[in-house]
Amino acid sequence: MLALVFDGSLNLVTTYADPTLRPGEALIRPHLAGICNTDLEITRGYMGFQGVLGHEFVGTVIACEDQAWVGQRVVGEINAACGVCATCRRGDAPHCLQRTTLGIDRRDGVMAECFSLPVSCLHVVPPTVPDTAAVFVEPLAAALEIVEQSHIRPTERVAVVGDGKLGAMIVQVLRLTGCALTLVGRHPERWGVYQRQGITCTTEDHLAAGSFDVVVDCTGQPAGLATTRRLVRPRGRLVLKSTFEAASEINLTMLVVDEVQLLGSRCGPFAPALRLLERGLIETAPLITATYPLTRALEAFAAARGNLKILLQMGSSN
Amino acid sequence: MLALVFDGSLNLVTTYADPTLRPGEALIRPHLAGICNTDLEITRGYMGFQGVLGHEFVGTVIACEDQAWVGQRVVGEINAACGVCATCRRGDAPHCLQRTTLGIDRRDGVMAECFSLPVSCLHVVPPTVPDTAAVFVEPLAAALEIVEQSHIRPTERVAVVGDGKLGAMIVQVLRLTGCALTLVGRHPERWGVYQRQGITCTTEDHLAAGSFDVVVDCTGQPAGLATTRRLVRPRGRLVLKSTFEAASEINLTMLVVDEVQLLGSRCGPFAPALRLLERGLIETAPLITATYPLTRALEAFAAARGNLKILLQMGSSN
Repeated sequence: MLALVFDGSLNLVTTYADPTLRPGEALIRPHLAGICNTDLEITRGYMGFQGVLGHEFVGTVIACEDQAWVGQRVVGEINAACGVCATCRRGDAPHCLQRTTLGIDRRDGVMAECFSLPVSCLHVVPPTVPDTAAVFVEPLAAALEIVEQSHIRPTERVAVVGDGKLGAMIVQVLRLTGCALTLVGRHPERWGVYQRQGITCTTEDHLAAGSFDVVVDCTGQPAGLATTRRLVRPRGRLVLKSTFEAASEINLTMLVVDEVQLLGSRCGPFAPALRLLERGLIETAPLITATYPLTRALEAFAAARGNLKILLQMGSSN
Repeated sequence: MLALVFDGSLNLVTTYADPTLRPGEALIRPHLAGICNTDLEITRGYMGFQGVLGHEFVGTVIACEDQAWVGQRVVGEINAACGVCATCRRGDAPHCLQRTTLGIDRRDGVMAECFSLPVSCLHVVPPTVPDTAAVFVEPLAAALEIVEQSHIRPTERVAVVGDGKLGAMIVQVLRLTGCALTLVGRHPERWGVYQRQGITCTTEDHLAAGSFDVVVDCTGQPAGLATTRRLVRPRGRLVLKSTFEAASEINLTMLVVDEVQLLGSRCGPFAPALRLLERGLIETAPLITATYPLTRALEAFAAARGNLKILLQMGSSN
């Protein structure tokens, strides 16, 4: 089958082996796939992954032991857990040490004609949510993980640093809390959609040190941490959403002196993400920069750097 | 007056100027002072402090505008806040940006015949708490800050890494929560008191990775972070208590992937620390390695490295 494969370099392969149907899993034909910054990081060596790229998708189940799934339009959580270890039994499957991760860690991803995922990862997409919105469920769930982990009060001053792909989801989730929300970025040309939503958008140099209760780093680069650190008040919370292939230097003593809380935050819950989309509370259409067919995936990856969401059209939704 | 002064080097000075009584402050004659690792760090350049060292004390008020304080036996919080800024009005005086800090930042400390502190920092010591216990209130309050900031559940597995001066307070506070508690250290000769209190004591190499819900770093050195990071489970909390004159390298991506929470923790509440001492729930006597007169302070500082608590006898309690 046709697949976008990373094996040290990125290649469109026409003869990649079809996935086989395993017990408890479904074979899925993707309609649309989204290119995430994590995909770009993987092509720089992040996670040492080799295989089919991609983890943001909406698609149709084409084969499954449980026939009830066949024909369903689905999105899917990306961590395939063992289900039996102590971490899974604690109810924390996303952190199972034996997990494989779709298109990120020892499991082929979605940028192919077909891929497989455990049915326990799947969520049926409500009919009112179009494919072009459903393909955002994975990053939207990652944004919701912030409010799953930490109580964001409606009276708090919150800054989101980074006006890229993930920042676009995070500000839209955080505005729903009623908090005083500022998006800090470097791309004023992207801010129209957020400003219409009542979100303050600005560059960093306009902001005083220590002026936020909560600061979210989704810059995707080690340097972003310095900004988030500067903006958070003593005893404030600093939420880290960026993953990248580099270590960071941080003055931990100042974290102690200012009693700042640092919160790592990754994958989130899919069910509320689907509910927010169904309720029309999240805008996705303005975030799509372009859609490419899978056959032009290399071009799409080149375009994904420095742009908002680039989608890959994998097939029709019929 | 006699004072232990750091001005790039550590000297016992016999002609240091007496402090003057300022509005809202009290003059205090210390009975006992404790040597803290922070004092040792200051002699290595931490905070760039110059002046009289010391912030752990118990003493008697000898002069104050408000006569009710005169003659009282007191301990004192070390942060002298402005009382009027936004941070102070939020009720967070310990993080006032204008604060001075006793023997640490622009305020002479306690290792002298006399020193001054705002009365808003003072707490009267109950008569049943002897000087040799009251002198531990400041580090005991710092240990209590952990349970003030984070809910430690009685069912959680908690590791305290570092069996030094601060660790001695932290394990004794955390054992009161009922949690499964392990002290991780390198000084088995110090563990007797904790083992009698029902605390498991061990070296790091006996512990599996990810086997604790909460890990507290009080090693006082950058290298301690690697141990704490290894021991904490995904979605666990890592409490940082160490301050030192060095930056640290940390893999923030792994914090994000494992969704670990990092919590900086510093000074804590004095009132509950006094209550725990009054209730006899904290042992202090076995932690005192030696007591030196102020005239032998240089010798005392040399002994403080690599030992538990060294006290300075400043005068009698009468």
